[in-house]
Amino acid sequence: MNKIEKIQRWLADNNQDIALITDPKTIQYLTGFYSDPVERVLMVVVFKDKDPFIFGPALESEAIKDTGWTNPVYGYLDHEDPWAMIADQVHARNTDETHFAIEKSQLAVDRLESLESVFSDGDFSANLTPFIEKMRLIKSADEIEKLKIAGKWDDFALQKGFEAVALGKTEDQIAADLQYALMQNGIMELSFPSLVQAGAHAAEPHGATSENQVQNNQLVLFDLGTVWQGYISDASRTVAVGKPDEKSMDIYNVCLEAQLTAQAAAKPGITAEELDKIARDVITKAGYGEYFIHRLGHGMGMSEHEFPSIMEGNKMELQPGMCFSIEPGIYIPNVAGVRIEDCVHITENGSEPFTHTTKELRYVDL
Amino acid sequence: MNKIEKIQRWLADNNQDIALITDPKTIQYLTGFYSDPVERVLMVVVFKDKDPFIFGPALESEAIKDTGWTNPVYGYLDHEDPWAMIADQVHARNTDETHFAIEKSQLAVDRLESLESVFSDGDFSANLTPFIEKMRLIKSADEIEKLKIAGKWDDFALQKGFEAVALGKTEDQIAADLQYALMQNGIMELSFPSLVQAGAHAAEPHGATSENQVQNNQLVLFDLGTVWQGYISDASRTVAVGKPDEKSMDIYNVCLEAQLTAQAAAKPGITAEELDKIARDVITKAGYGEYFIHRLGHGMGMSEHEFPSIMEGNKMELQPGMCFSIEPGIYIPNVAGVRIEDCVHITENGSEPFTHTTKELRYVDL
Repeated sequence: MNKIEKIQRWLADNNQDIALITDPKTIQYLTGFYSDPVERVLMVVVFKDKDPFIFGPALESEAIKDTGWTNPVYGYLDHEDPWAMIADQVHARNTDETHFAIEKSQLAVDRLESLESVFSDGDFSANLTPFIEKMRLIKSADEIEKLKIAGKWDDFALQKGFEAVALGKTEDQIAADLQYALMQNGIMELSFPSLVQAGAHAAEPHGATSENQVQNNQLVLFDLGTVWQGYISDASRTVAVGKPDEKSMDIYNVCLEAQLTAQAAAKPGITAEELDKIARDVITKAGYGEYFIHRLGHGMGMSEHEFPSIMEGNKMELQPGMCFSIEPGIYIPNVAGVRIEDCVHITENGSEPFTHTTKELRYVDL
Repeated sequence: MNKIEKIQRWLADNNQDIALITDPKTIQYLTGFYSDPVERVLMVVVFKDKDPFIFGPALESEAIKDTGWTNPVYGYLDHEDPWAMIADQVHARNTDETHFAIEKSQLAVDRLESLESVFSDGDFSANLTPFIEKMRLIKSADEIEKLKIAGKWDDFALQKGFEAVALGKTEDQIAADLQYALMQNGIMELSFPSLVQAGAHAAEPHGATSENQVQNNQLVLFDLGTVWQGYISDASRTVAVGKPDEKSMDIYNVCLEAQLTAQAAAKPGITAEELDKIARDVITKAGYGEYFIHRLGHGMGMSEHEFPSIMEGNKMELQPGMCFSIEPGIYIPNVAGVRIEDCVHITENGSEPFTHTTKELRYVDL
């Protein structure tokens, strides 16, 4: 059963008639075609018992067909009303269907109102999001293969980043060098802006690269990701320049122990919250619990915002094919920040990381 | 009156009590703080007659305060329930307010359902989006200044792109070179992925760079954008390699005439659809109307998806301070594509472009 057929079966099982799919990532997952249409409308319309169609901007129609989609594609021009045109296509199929499932996690309120206005008998209470998330939760062998390739390019990016470190060089310049190395190899897309943070700047967990310069006797944090055929990588390493102070070395060692312990414990049957706790306990026991201010990890695959979320309160049992990050971090304001991260996939007996750059503290050559 | 006060007045004028602001770009516009929280929750809560607060991920709290926001900031941890915590903060202010205005163009349906569950008496029918769009429509002198700087970097990027063109070089490599030149100058953020398309590949108006190589006697299309302090640039130029065939030269000349004619006509009082028609008439008269398959332009400022939209059906009169693109394009499948674009701001008497790279056909040095 292909993915569209799985949605058709879900519709039948849940007394729904039509799925209106609008999340660009879901559309990519189902069709291989990716485009973020922003204020324009792009939608895959899946009927319980009829062939689906894609509706979108006219200027995307050829690109959609090029991906091998053989069902109809309908394009609209900027001055046309996409909602009325979608309704016309649905009505042209002689349906008296009224139960629509929508992606509630993605569809904006005003778009739902537009749908309600053109399908005045429509019932839009069913949420397709949980089923899509469940479909995407367990990765196929083909998906794992793409994630491994993205992971190899992440190892490459880390290596280029380490090589780019020099005293007095800014975080921005280091990020520029490693990104150029990726682009020279045809890797044009990152999963997020490359993060390079030196010294105390790394204590901002959601910071950005800046004009902050690398100084001697500091830690430098890298958090890098690439994209390979729609699948992402995401890894963090923290490296030493010269001889960082004892406090920095201590939090490095605690963070490393937390990361290694959790990664070794990741296997089928353990719950997401148990895994979070394993890493958190290491850090708390060492006295740094208050400085680990985010969950242990996030699911990943086509984005770094998938399931399972590795955090307190998530009692989901890990299963083969689940993919997520294991990324404990310790951030002491005005002192230093450390984060060490691999993304892994759960196997029959344990887990395997997508990145293989050593996690033992690396002293960069200056 | 500052921007928050304008929203407070709008609430009072529209019988609303509280604005729940969730669009990251609106939050940046109001506060100077930008973060895309993705699956996390970031919200500015503006009361009609009380001080506002910001609610968001704990790991962003310091960065929010660093931007100079002096009202309360409340952070939540990943395992906490943000919706309940937002409701607690609202209720702690002893309000019996029930009318909430939301950003319907951005808020996802499941988030509205979460709000409805914690504010069970809440009325969420009011849409704040049109007022925010109206606020953002007319740019201040300070905003125009930032757009001019972003435009200068776009001229720089175009120049570096032209210099990078060589026979046999791929579109990807040319994009890599110009992006590296930007990053070396500290311009780390692009408003969209740089687009370089050679020959017939440029006939895909929403394409991407690829491994397609530049050949002699072709046109090469560039569409580039940078970001300066949250404000973007966006410009397209098409250049010649060797001696392109007559058809390519003809569509270049027609597109150029359309662009120059429309740009000269952009001034206060003309409507958006009239401006679109001025460019479209030039192209239609030359016999290429069917190949100009998008609107003439889009509003721009903090993003390339603002108002006014320069298209058929938009009867909005242009006014000083409005900023938008003028970008006719002619795309003949399997032959060639041309797009020429400046973004402009409307002045008292006419318009001024943010980019100044010549639009006369440039023959790149090989």
